[in-house]
Amino acid sequence: MRNLLMTVCYDGTNYYGFQTQPGGNTVQDCIEEAIKGLTGEVIKIHGSGRTDAGVHARQQPFHFMTSSKIPIERWRMALNGRLPADIRIIEAAEVPLDFHSRRSAKRKTYRYTINGNRVPDVFWRNYQLHHPGKLDTAAMREGLRYLVGTHDFTSFASRHSTKASHVRTIYEATLEVETSPVYSGSNEQGIIHILLTGNGFLQHMVRIIVGTLLEVGEGKRKPEDIKTILEAVNRKAAGPTAESKGLMLWSVEYDAIELKGNEERC
Amino acid sequence: MRNLLMTVCYDGTNYYGFQTQPGGNTVQDCIEEAIKGLTGEVIKIHGSGRTDAGVHARQQPFHFMTSSKIPIERWRMALNGRLPADIRIIEAAEVPLDFHSRRSAKRKTYRYTINGNRVPDVFWRNYQLHHPGKLDTAAMREGLRYLVGTHDFTSFASRHSTKASHVRTIYEATLEVETSPVYSGSNEQGIIHILLTGNGFLQHMVRIIVGTLLEVGEGKRKPEDIKTILEAVNRKAAGPTAESKGLMLWSVEYDAIELKGNEERC
Repeated sequence: MRNLLMTVCYDGTNYYGFQTQPGGNTVQDCIEEAIKGLTGEVIKIHGSGRTDAGVHARQQPFHFMTSSKIPIERWRMALNGRLPADIRIIEAAEVPLDFHSRRSAKRKTYRYTINGNRVPDVFWRNYQLHHPGKLDTAAMREGLRYLVGTHDFTSFASRHSTKASHVRTIYEATLEVETSPVYSGSNEQGIIHILLTGNGFLQHMVRIIVGTLLEVGEGKRKPEDIKTILEAVNRKAAGPTAESKGLMLWSVEYDAIELKGNEERC
Repeated sequence: MRNLLMTVCYDGTNYYGFQTQPGGNTVQDCIEEAIKGLTGEVIKIHGSGRTDAGVHARQQPFHFMTSSKIPIERWRMALNGRLPADIRIIEAAEVPLDFHSRRSAKRKTYRYTINGNRVPDVFWRNYQLHHPGKLDTAAMREGLRYLVGTHDFTSFASRHSTKASHVRTIYEATLEVETSPVYSGSNEQGIIHILLTGNGFLQHMVRIIVGTLLEVGEGKRKPEDIKTILEAVNRKAAGPTAESKGLMLWSVEYDAIELKGNEERC
């Protein structure tokens, strides 16, 4: 038996998230179907996390056990030939048998993108929230600072969260502004990226943080309200859940030591 | 009567090009339908050029005559509210009655994008040709140099071209390489953009140039073959027509003098 760790990139627009659902049409279903087509095995893959319907992934690791003898360097192309064009395996590696893509993860980064320009970007329309109204990005940056550290994130988690603990650590929370390659005008706000890196994220956590930060940007809340909201430990204290399409799982990091034996990355 | 000049940006994936076709489903049809919905007028818009099915536009100007009294600054939002999400009006201006978006155009720029990385970019999959095979970009750059100047471009035009003259002037022909934001590996070729600026382009001209340049990049032809192909004045001398999805109308430029009276850009 071998344990394979792969990284997948997907446009989540047409899927009900990563993880298998009763209704079908998930990224996991597509990958398991491709593996079945390749090796004949009916297996379950284990993602480094879930994503909501419409959320994208730049780099999402998953692992699975296989008894196939196909050399590791051949998996990527073989699976991509069986996957739809909006899902691509970008990396494949053989890892120790006790490696787990979720439990071994040390840091996860999500990126949320807001198009602050007057007209939506046609080419990125499925990957950005359009918010042409004025946003105070300095206030949003200040609000982000209150999230860094170890906190109970109940206020920023879905009421349907089933996790025993809502305590998580945010290592970095930044906001970057880039000018759009398509529309560049002196009155344009540009493209706003919010990047959050932590040891784990609760259901809807990034989207509720962004929904609340947008209210800070609009002047409806003050940056220091983020602190009060955290202390309330109550979902009602925070703002709305921002649309899923602006969210992208950016990266998942592991300790190099846990990946050892992994000489055959392709 | 007023003459309105607008600039449209579109994802051409789902359209049979810009210009109205017997089969319908063109960008022009969508815009004329939106104008009809807004003003009640059944009018014909005039594009600065045609695009093939699947070709995109970052900035494509068009103009039309209207008797509507709607202020110029309200047109963009009003039309965007009636257009599908893959077509957006990004600019609108009132221009002199004798201004013509195609005949007044001085310079047009097209960009063709080739993804040279091993795995296609999921997010740009409809806007890039995927070519993971090794390309000699230095040779391609050298080949591009032979195109600059005034030439008969019959060899690089569709056999179905109905133009009386195939003489066109290319002002600039460049090749740029950018590293992909999604996949960055030391063995990756990156994203290759070919930019061509000229006074006009014949049917399929950019795509045939790119198809031929790819053969130069693959080592099947020499850079100086571009000169021989031009001299042949025969479509058979050139390479294949590259896929439409990598092509984007980048910009169309006018003389400022012809746009005068255009103080009310919004």
